[in-house]
Amino acid sequence: MDDIAFTPTFEQYTYTFGGAAPIMKVRPGSVLRLWSEDAFNHALRSVDDLSSEKVDLAAVNPQTGPFEVEGAEPGDTLALHIVELTPARDFGASAHIPFFGGLTSTDRTAMLQQALPDTTWIYHVDRSRNTVTFDGRFGDFSVDLPIEPMLGTIGVAPAGGEVRSSLVPERFGGNMDTPEAKPGATIYLGVNVPGAMFSLGDGHYRQGEGEACGTAVEGAMDSVVLVELIKGGAPTWPRIETDTHLMAIGSSRPMEDSWRIGQVEMVRWFEDLYDLHTMDAYQLLSQITEVPIANVVDANYSVAVKARRSLLPAVSPYDGIHAALRARAAEVR
Amino acid sequence: MDDIAFTPTFEQYTYTFGGAAPIMKVRPGSVLRLWSEDAFNHALRSVDDLSSEKVDLAAVNPQTGPFEVEGAEPGDTLALHIVELTPARDFGASAHIPFFGGLTSTDRTAMLQQALPDTTWIYHVDRSRNTVTFDGRFGDFSVDLPIEPMLGTIGVAPAGGEVRSSLVPERFGGNMDTPEAKPGATIYLGVNVPGAMFSLGDGHYRQGEGEACGTAVEGAMDSVVLVELIKGGAPTWPRIETDTHLMAIGSSRPMEDSWRIGQVEMVRWFEDLYDLHTMDAYQLLSQITEVPIANVVDANYSVAVKARRSLLPAVSPYDGIHAALRARAAEVR
Amino acid sequence: MDDIAFTPTFEQYTYTFGGAAPIMKVRPGSVLRLWSEDAFNHALRSVDDLSSEKVDLAAVNPQTGPFEVEGAEPGDTLALHIVELTPARDFGASAHIPFFGGLTSTDRTAMLQQALPDTTWIYHVDRSRNTVTFDGRFGDFSVDLPIEPMLGTIGVAPAGGEVRSSLVPERFGGNMDTPEAKPGATIYLGVNVPGAMFSLGDGHYRQGEGEACGTAVEGAMDSVVLVELIKGGAPTWPRIETDTHLMAIGSSRPMEDSWRIGQVEMVRWFEDLYDLHTMDAYQLLSQITEVPIANVVDANYSVAVKARRSLLPAVSPYDGIHAALRARAAEVR
Amino acid sequence: MDDIAFTPTFEQYTYTFGGAAPIMKVRPGSVLRLWSEDAFNHALRSVDDLSSEKVDLAAVNPQTGPFEVEGAEPGDTLALHIVELTPARDFGASAHIPFFGGLTSTDRTAMLQQALPDTTWIYHVDRSRNTVTFDGRFGDFSVDLPIEPMLGTIGVAPAGGEVRSSLVPERFGGNMDTPEAKPGATIYLGVNVPGAMFSLGDGHYRQGEGEACGTAVEGAMDSVVLVELIKGGAPTWPRIETDTHLMAIGSSRPMEDSWRIGQVEMVRWFEDLYDLHTMDAYQLLSQITEVPIANVVDANYSVAVKARRSLLPAVSPYDGIHAALRARAAEVR
Repeated sequence: MDDIAFTPTFEQYTYTFGGAAPIMKVRPGSVLRLWSEDAFNHALRSVDDLSSEKVDLAAVNPQTGPFEVEGAEPGDTLALHIVELTPARDFGASAHIPFFGGLTSTDRTAMLQQALPDTTWIYHVDRSRNTVTFDGRFGDFSVDLPIEPMLGTIGVAPAGGEVRSSLVPERFGGNMDTPEAKPGATIYLGVNVPGAMFSLGDGHYRQGEGEACGTAVEGAMDSVVLVELIKGGAPTWPRIETDTHLMAIGSSRPMEDSWRIGQVEMVRWFEDLYDLHTMDAYQLLSQITEVPIANVVDANYSVAVKARRSLLPAVSPYDGIHAALRARAAEVR
Repeated sequence: MDDIAFTPTFEQYTYTFGGAAPIMKVRPGSVLRLWSEDAFNHALRSVDDLSSEKVDLAAVNPQTGPFEVEGAEPGDTLALHIVELTPARDFGASAHIPFFGGLTSTDRTAMLQQALPDTTWIYHVDRSRNTVTFDGRFGDFSVDLPIEPMLGTIGVAPAGGEVRSSLVPERFGGNMDTPEAKPGATIYLGVNVPGAMFSLGDGHYRQGEGEACGTAVEGAMDSVVLVELIKGGAPTWPRIETDTHLMAIGSSRPMEDSWRIGQVEMVRWFEDLYDLHTMDAYQLLSQITEVPIANVVDANYSVAVKARRSLLPAVSPYDGIHAALRARAAEVR
Repeated sequence: MDDIAFTPTFEQYTYTFGGAAPIMKVRPGSVLRLWSEDAFNHALRSVDDLSSEKVDLAAVNPQTGPFEVEGAEPGDTLALHIVELTPARDFGASAHIPFFGGLTSTDRTAMLQQALPDTTWIYHVDRSRNTVTFDGRFGDFSVDLPIEPMLGTIGVAPAGGEVRSSLVPERFGGNMDTPEAKPGATIYLGVNVPGAMFSLGDGHYRQGEGEACGTAVEGAMDSVVLVELIKGGAPTWPRIETDTHLMAIGSSRPMEDSWRIGQVEMVRWFEDLYDLHTMDAYQLLSQITEVPIANVVDANYSVAVKARRSLLPAVSPYDGIHAALRARAAEVR
Repeated sequence: MDDIAFTPTFEQYTYTFGGAAPIMKVRPGSVLRLWSEDAFNHALRSVDDLSSEKVDLAAVNPQTGPFEVEGAEPGDTLALHIVELTPARDFGASAHIPFFGGLTSTDRTAMLQQALPDTTWIYHVDRSRNTVTFDGRFGDFSVDLPIEPMLGTIGVAPAGGEVRSSLVPERFGGNMDTPEAKPGATIYLGVNVPGAMFSLGDGHYRQGEGEACGTAVEGAMDSVVLVELIKGGAPTWPRIETDTHLMAIGSSRPMEDSWRIGQVEMVRWFEDLYDLHTMDAYQLLSQITEVPIANVVDANYSVAVKARRSLLPAVSPYDGIHAALRARAAEVR
């Protein structure tokens, strides 16, 4: 098993899914120890760094990758298991970028009102207590919040020769901004191009569901990831398996369509897992799903549709690969 | 303190919020022990009862109420604390009603495809084990699921002289279909008309978030509810307080607007509770909210935006009325 | 044939569809000569009258009516033919009402930005030239625009005992704000309650499609309307017939659902009119429909789906009632 | 002035905006005489050719291009004037592709219903009468419809290194499917990459607004196009100028956002053209816009927001380039 550590140089960052030459070829079974830059490309280091002045919006969500997976072919399933995520800096940054976010007009929900004030918040990391600190910018309110690290972006190259910005969540994964992309999760992505060409980045030290203001507690991240390849079986949309849940992530607009996508993907998965008729899968899931919103701010909105495993007969999707990855994760951590 | 038990007759059911004469006048401080009929008006009793044949769609979600609250005036806040919810029958029913639900075309998301098969599922209640049993209709899959009772509808009369169907979730509450309307929750609703005129019904023995197929495990319910009145302070949209969370429920279409409503309502609440500037409230909530979808099938879609209290400095909204209601709930249960 | 002139007093205005006692009983075949107040209830008379100060938002779109139509029963079709619309004042008013309109955040598309400036525009009516004059409020730009009078609201009482604000466009018609509700149009509305209980108002001296800023050139209106009743045949959604077009108006959210509703209603109508299979009606309409947006600012968004008659074999829907009404209109004008 | 005729070979077709090497370099001022294949890649030639069997969905909307425009740089404005569009075959084809179109569930508006029947319609072209003939597939209804040729796709390479399918309408133009892209129209597109890299295709012999069933009367097309370059002045979204109208095309989801984009783009244009304050431009456009839907079936929905020039003081946007192009069009036709 290959154990590979990689930190990209600034010149090696990529800002798209698809369209970039692979940074490295990796074999299924590899463990990757990756460093990723924060979403702002390290442009916000103090509350005086305003996004309108410092952030190059054409170079956000820098990706670490893409990695070419040996043997991966269209129709295969890439399994990426997140072993560990560790903040790689002593602070995280968040910002209200003018005309970006969920409670402001945007370039798409276009309106005529003035922008909200361009504002930056810096969150101090306390590793011993595993917290980040919110400090109000317009008052002296302060509160420590637990670090709950996750990856905002994780995805493969799109189908059809498309190249998409690293701000886009889609069928290929990408900027889903779901707190479900956390340690212990195995993410299944359909492979669209030879080598899969996956990348990751946009580390969040924590994020609320919805990512309301448009940015999380953004920070450089050390990620340990296990890479596996399943021949065939590509899901239509990203699926995630954890010890406690099975889930699918839909990303589209309007948000009810994101939900529909995720819910249908789960119906299809349940048909397979439990040999259920469509109507029975539809009904059963109707009574058990947990449906947290992931983001309402990106190029597509993302919704996670989850089923709690403890409610259901035990299943081992994809021949039990998640359990195997969990076991290996314990060894490589 | 008045302790009132009430079971409506069939003729006393109402099917709207607003527009109906009060069934009873109650004083703030009262405990109500209410029986409510199931959403189908008891029309589905076996899997052979099909909704297209048995259910009168003009008479669904029968409400118990409305109750006139003494002293309630427009601008006041009605606080309804759910003490206890107990299934009042030995079975619950769910159905796919043709052209109703989240993964089918509907009268609004109008399309030309054929309907999905009209199907009814009956869930046996096991009180000793506190479960309902899902039995597949197209196969022999069966699984016991915990009873997690909730009220699909709880609301007051609308503003502006409007009268709305009991299928509608809105600013006045109503058919929000949120699993958050469960025992232990205090629901705050702005009063629009003298007496508030609240009603409840549509008991669910359990429901997944989204209520994907359009109906939950629907069942007659025994509800114990405490009624309180707060002079003034009406929230714009329904708020809910539990021991663990503060939350707001937005209901509109498309679903991103439901979310926006809930998220803004929470920003406004946090401005008040913690004396925060709008931008700081926006930012803080962005990093902590939990955002489960409630329903994607009703006249409006509903989304809950929640903040976990344990992350935050302690607050006692509305002068600590929730704690007081919790204490009284322990006595009346 | 009855020929009835009616001007309501201020006390007679109604602000809902449904829920109000009829102002008058009329027989099918009647000609009604009605006066209606403007949408602002005459509160804006100069550019110094700001909507936030002068307009009572609980009393806008005052309706003239409701009229009880003798013999109308649920399932029947009310045909209202607009003979003539004449501005009843020498000026029209338009306003940007804070947080109302299409290019601002609203109570539903809720955001945190500041409101756009509360602004009123007064349009001088020149009857000889049949124009209204736009005068810029922030500069000296001025332009005369042709008067193209239309009714913003025209509708019947809703089904299911609902009562809806006169700001709402729905299945029952209402505040559709479509420029298609103009002289020469026959509007078909399904009857939901005995007597139909129709009303009209919200006269517009002119309006762009979409009614972007939320208000048209609003003005008191003299309307001449012919009332007819067709037994049975109620359309699901409002249909309109003119000499040149057949059309249906869908109203919902998001706007693609409004369109779907209107397009499906036209498919159903074409199946009947031309004895077409669903798929052929779908295809044929795909190649010929004209689809102007009506409003993107009301409680529901409205879209008109139109088919140009000159492209198609001649048909006389509803036994040629439109032609008969056109003939009678020439007599009563 | 260069006068260039070009017919691509099958191998030269491209299926994306961006990402393809230029087929040819052209100078501003050139007249291009281009042949384009139909959207189905000529796979549907009789009603027995079903889309599910014959159409390769990874190779639809084949583009003629991209053309590199000499001197075009990011921030410039490409002006493409459509001189003439002529059907290049004796038939057009339309199809209901399963799970594609406006009145069916799709991969995005995901549902569980069965597909509508896969159906192909062939429209015979009668050049002398300038008509195509609709022949019902499920009955004997037949009607001749005027040919009104338009281009479904016309666009430049996207910004940010993205590559998008030729099924996508966006800021860069693309698959807008607007009947406004017809002879006599000058289309203004912001240049994102050196050389602009524009292409066109997806000829429609006619199309209803909305393109309800997902496909128009699709046919190979002979296009005569004039190419001009304006230094600077890039519009944010595509603008179109004709002798009678100025307009902007917004493309997003949900459809109200497409409209907002188009309406804001027009506000911004009117601020410039008439030196208007934002609020006056907003108000004026509110009373005059015509807003036909373009498509409700593609990856984004498109809406055209139009202002009729005859209502307004004469203006010559972009230094009168449209008039100059019209004059030249008369010479090269």
